[in-house]
Amino acid sequence: MSPKRIHNFNAGPAALPQVVLEEIQENFLDFKGSGMSITEVSHRSKWFDEVINDAIDRIKRLLDLDDRYHILFMQGGASLQFCLMPMNFLNDGRSADYVNTGTWSTKAIKEAEIQGKPVQVVASSEDRNFAYIPKNIEFTPGATFAHITSNNTIKGTQWAEFPDTGGIPLFADMSSDIFCRPFDASNFGLFYAGAQKNMGPAGVCMVAVRDDFLEMVPEDLPTMLKYTTHSAKNSMFNTPPCFAIYTVQLVVKWLEETIGGLDKMAALNQQKADLLYGFIDQSDFYAGTADADSRSLMNVTFRLPSEELEQQFVADALNNDLGGLKGHRSVGGCRASIYNPTPLAGVEALVDFMKTFEQKNG
Amino acid sequence: MSPKRIHNFNAGPAALPQVVLEEIQENFLDFKGSGMSITEVSHRSKWFDEVINDAIDRIKRLLDLDDRYHILFMQGGASLQFCLMPMNFLNDGRSADYVNTGTWSTKAIKEAEIQGKPVQVVASSEDRNFAYIPKNIEFTPGATFAHITSNNTIKGTQWAEFPDTGGIPLFADMSSDIFCRPFDASNFGLFYAGAQKNMGPAGVCMVAVRDDFLEMVPEDLPTMLKYTTHSAKNSMFNTPPCFAIYTVQLVVKWLEETIGGLDKMAALNQQKADLLYGFIDQSDFYAGTADADSRSLMNVTFRLPSEELEQQFVADALNNDLGGLKGHRSVGGCRASIYNPTPLAGVEALVDFMKTFEQKNG
Repeated sequence: MSPKRIHNFNAGPAALPQVVLEEIQENFLDFKGSGMSITEVSHRSKWFDEVINDAIDRIKRLLDLDDRYHILFMQGGASLQFCLMPMNFLNDGRSADYVNTGTWSTKAIKEAEIQGKPVQVVASSEDRNFAYIPKNIEFTPGATFAHITSNNTIKGTQWAEFPDTGGIPLFADMSSDIFCRPFDASNFGLFYAGAQKNMGPAGVCMVAVRDDFLEMVPEDLPTMLKYTTHSAKNSMFNTPPCFAIYTVQLVVKWLEETIGGLDKMAALNQQKADLLYGFIDQSDFYAGTADADSRSLMNVTFRLPSEELEQQFVADALNNDLGGLKGHRSVGGCRASIYNPTPLAGVEALVDFMKTFEQKNG
Repeated sequence: MSPKRIHNFNAGPAALPQVVLEEIQENFLDFKGSGMSITEVSHRSKWFDEVINDAIDRIKRLLDLDDRYHILFMQGGASLQFCLMPMNFLNDGRSADYVNTGTWSTKAIKEAEIQGKPVQVVASSEDRNFAYIPKNIEFTPGATFAHITSNNTIKGTQWAEFPDTGGIPLFADMSSDIFCRPFDASNFGLFYAGAQKNMGPAGVCMVAVRDDFLEMVPEDLPTMLKYTTHSAKNSMFNTPPCFAIYTVQLVVKWLEETIGGLDKMAALNQQKADLLYGFIDQSDFYAGTADADSRSLMNVTFRLPSEELEQQFVADALNNDLGGLKGHRSVGGCRASIYNPTPLAGVEALVDFMKTFEQKNG
């Protein structure tokens, strides 16, 4: 009997490519003839070395990263990165700019402030409930980095283009849109992504960090809190989250070999987003919440005429095997997360359901 | 075709119960009728709530923990705990005692010293290369906690009984022997275990912490580095490592329902250890490295007459489907890790192989 599978619009943990799940399942008791599960092989073994190094190679190819960039697999999610960036890089009088585009940016700023680090919030969209991405930002000359959240999972906004910082290295939390499209990484000093939205399961955070930033890390920080500890040991100072890294490897392999790279992924994501936003825009029943020029390719947020209808919508959708459509608990409403693994057929099924629901309840 | 499976003596990541692996595999594309993989369900869903809460309930029952103890699932391994314990609990003039029984204890002490926290190393077995567990230790009156490593994975030593601290709360790194036997947890203020040795896959660290220690945590630490952040949110301040926690849940379920609890687990572990140590002791070819009264039930370390024979032993063993017998890279020699999931049949197969190898090469 083939397993039941729904269309999964969860914001994270989120859908994974079905072929990736099937490969994990098939090899789960015997990884590459080792006679052990991937969860049982040593992280110091040839089997795991191949996994982690292949993952790194593919990530660097997909993002066109040169040798100045180091790919780390860390634990603690993006939330730990919020604390580590200022701890590692804002010493000896160095300061940073932050742009506030919602919950995750706010948390990142807070973690710098808790440590008493000098940070400037140079732009914010809080005035309109984070429904847009700020434009024409004046960054602070001499800032060590300028931090942005590339995609706001909760409010459904995304930077269409990254800002011109006047040469200040960008830092970015890309947890919810990494690999959704190509971008010029050479402006970035550091970017990171909790895997559980667009690149794998929960439990690993990918960090790409440039040489010049590693050189700023103070010697006397606690060992596990220094980026240099992890870069010096290829993310194996201590036991890494092997299963999560293995799944990431399979996802980036899928991106390269099945999808065909980030240009093709971007075209498919645009097609999915156009279909869903196009439907919402022509409807008087559904209303998008983000400004049109700031809309996310990944998280499509919308409201229905009442909270009661929203609750019914989410419940009826699940009965039609369309899951995870409830908005974030902090904002309510509805949200369809259509990350890389979501196939076009999933979005088509969602739009069909939305039409029917509108006809019945509109 | 049934998958190839070897006897896995890796020190960590290590063998998991085969029934646990089979259950994960069987349900990997559809978790409990959700139509999603366990790697795809939201950590805010009823499915994951049941997983994490069942895991906590079983852990508290297995260890007979009262309501003062909070079970946390954190990331960063035991290595992050080394830094968090002094950061959270050694403020306002408070100091701690540490016992040094090898690599991991040494690292724990170093992380307190990096932060400039007052710690006393009250006993050490470094004088004889950590081959024993110190006795008759004088702890420091007024110390906030006394930290030990309950089992030394690398040197193959284990506390047969926990020390009498004169009322100072014990803290323990139990990464490599948690759940190997019952113990009186009421003397402990905190204990923790990276899952990848005796309770699950890499990527999650279980922490049991008592109320009175949570009350000591300063408000102004970075959010992710405070134990109270994780205790207040049932380990879901941010996205937890869902798959690793799910595997831990299945392992503790196996301990309760298949093994029948920690008394039975301890009896089985003693039987496995007696068989292997008994064989080593009667042999002139193999030599144990730990003092007899300090031997670990979990990690059996031994030498052969030469390094060449040790290399050949490890290679020949793998050809006989007995894997992971190489000693830690820092000490050489051989090591058989016989954690809870290793069946008696695995130890019997190892002893049979060791007999044959001795006959050929002795």
